[in-house]
Amino acid sequence: MLVSEKQIEVRYAETDQMGVVYHANYLVWFELGRTQLIKDLGFEYAAMEKQGVLSPVVDLQISYKKSLKYGQKAIVKTSVKSVGPIKVVYSYEVYNDEGDLCSIGESTHVLVSKDEFKPLKFKKEFPDWYVAYEKAMN
Amino acid sequence: MLVSEKQIEVRYAETDQMGVVYHANYLVWFELGRTQLIKDLGFEYAAMEKQGVLSPVVDLQISYKKSLKYGQKAIVKTSVKSVGPIKVVYSYEVYNDEGDLCSIGESTHVLVSKDEFKPLKFKKEFPDWYVAYEKAMN
Amino acid sequence: MLVSEKQIEVRYAETDQMGVVYHANYLVWFELGRTQLIKDLGFEYAAMEKQGVLSPVVDLQISYKKSLKYGQKAIVKTSVKSVGPIKVVYSYEVYNDEGDLCSIGESTHVLVSKDEFKPLKFKKEFPDWYVAYEKAMN
Amino acid sequence: MLVSEKQIEVRYAETDQMGVVYHANYLVWFELGRTQLIKDLGFEYAAMEKQGVLSPVVDLQISYKKSLKYGQKAIVKTSVKSVGPIKVVYSYEVYNDEGDLCSIGESTHVLVSKDEFKPLKFKKEFPDWYVAYEKAMN
Repeated sequence: MLVSEKQIEVRYAETDQMGVVYHANYLVWFELGRTQLIKDLGFEYAAMEKQGVLSPVVDLQISYKKSLKYGQKAIVKTSVKSVGPIKVVYSYEVYNDEGDLCSIGESTHVLVSKDEFKPLKFKKEFPDWYVAYEKAMN
Repeated sequence: MLVSEKQIEVRYAETDQMGVVYHANYLVWFELGRTQLIKDLGFEYAAMEKQGVLSPVVDLQISYKKSLKYGQKAIVKTSVKSVGPIKVVYSYEVYNDEGDLCSIGESTHVLVSKDEFKPLKFKKEFPDWYVAYEKAMN
Repeated sequence: MLVSEKQIEVRYAETDQMGVVYHANYLVWFELGRTQLIKDLGFEYAAMEKQGVLSPVVDLQISYKKSLKYGQKAIVKTSVKSVGPIKVVYSYEVYNDEGDLCSIGESTHVLVSKDEFKPLKFKKEFPDWYVAYEKAMN
Repeated sequence: MLVSEKQIEVRYAETDQMGVVYHANYLVWFELGRTQLIKDLGFEYAAMEKQGVLSPVVDLQISYKKSLKYGQKAIVKTSVKSVGPIKVVYSYEVYNDEGDLCSIGESTHVLVSKDEFKPLKFKKEFPDWYVAYEKAMN
């Protein structure tokens, strides 16, 4: 199974008055992990959008185990959990630079047309990409 | 059951290049809904923090049904789903100004001390608040 | 001179680990003030974009006098400082709910086409709007 | 004169519905540039805060020349413009990966105590750091 790694320096702007990373920012990090995974598979999300196709999130779950602080580095490990004709599920693990698991999560994505948000079939629209995802799970 | 309502004007800053509200911003809106619920019950989250107690999110789930756009208003309906000695679960529904359900979600919160993030018991630390939550569920 | 007022509840997400509102968020508040001013003049920025015209910021200055905290309300007072065929300059004052001046700033905006970011003339594209801006300065 | 370089991958979350990076996010990038400069000089901003000292922005100016898009890389070049007993002024240039100048700016910072936001003297509190800044200007 392919597990992509993306290292992220915690930004000051990402903290809140608790003195730790604000919880919504992990969703941004998941996205950076996802972008890295796509890149590691030889594709580019920006290119998909240029073709008029978007891949919005439809479901997302996240558990927070340990907080991260400014001055630390986060490592996001991303993999493809499942891929079907309509939906892709990614899973994420976020670690701090001491190797502690700080957060885990999953997100489910579909494909839609940019103009009208009409549902599209992943396998049909991007067959090579689809095959790469199937391989990435093994 | 108490359902608090919070109206939110979509901010330009909250959109992304899909032309809709960026998915992580719904977590910020959930927080605004939660703050409103606490206010409707006669309490104030800022006051809890002044007493040296934080209430971080430990689990969060969200489903996206319909996107929201700049120029629209969002209504967040928030209620207490469950309350226990250690955890509180809030549930959320986000509507657009035409009454369409756009997103649903849940978040689980604990109490910790501000200094060392030590777990605290909700019922023991804030007994009045706890009772108000129990009532809010009926 | 028209001075529009927009009240904003400080969001938890807007704080950073200094325990105050993160400085970049004032630019978002300026935008809310600007949107309110436009509304008070009988126009709507979202409608301008629907016509294929954008109004990006080209220059911005801000001074920070006093910090704002979660649990407080901010009041943004916005006015038109100058309007010309190409540029509009807005000025902003941010107050806390005790009436202290917390921040002042200015932003300069142009009009461009959505498709190619080509410069457009304000007076020519939106003559009524232009006249309203001229009046708003007196 | 020391000019620090920090490369930044544009995040999807940083775009808005104009299809370009939202203007307030450049302030976050300036901060990343500043952090890099401090690092290049052998210091660490996080360490300053651990000693109970904050360095808030008091003035900021920015001009936007060319927009940046998702899928591009930004390079922030940061230098010390002036340093005095009370204030430090940083200057910034943001380039895209084709070498076009996209934005320029300046920010002025003071030092204050974490507890009461009392003004502190840079030269007195951090003499080594102060000397390094003086050298960085030549």
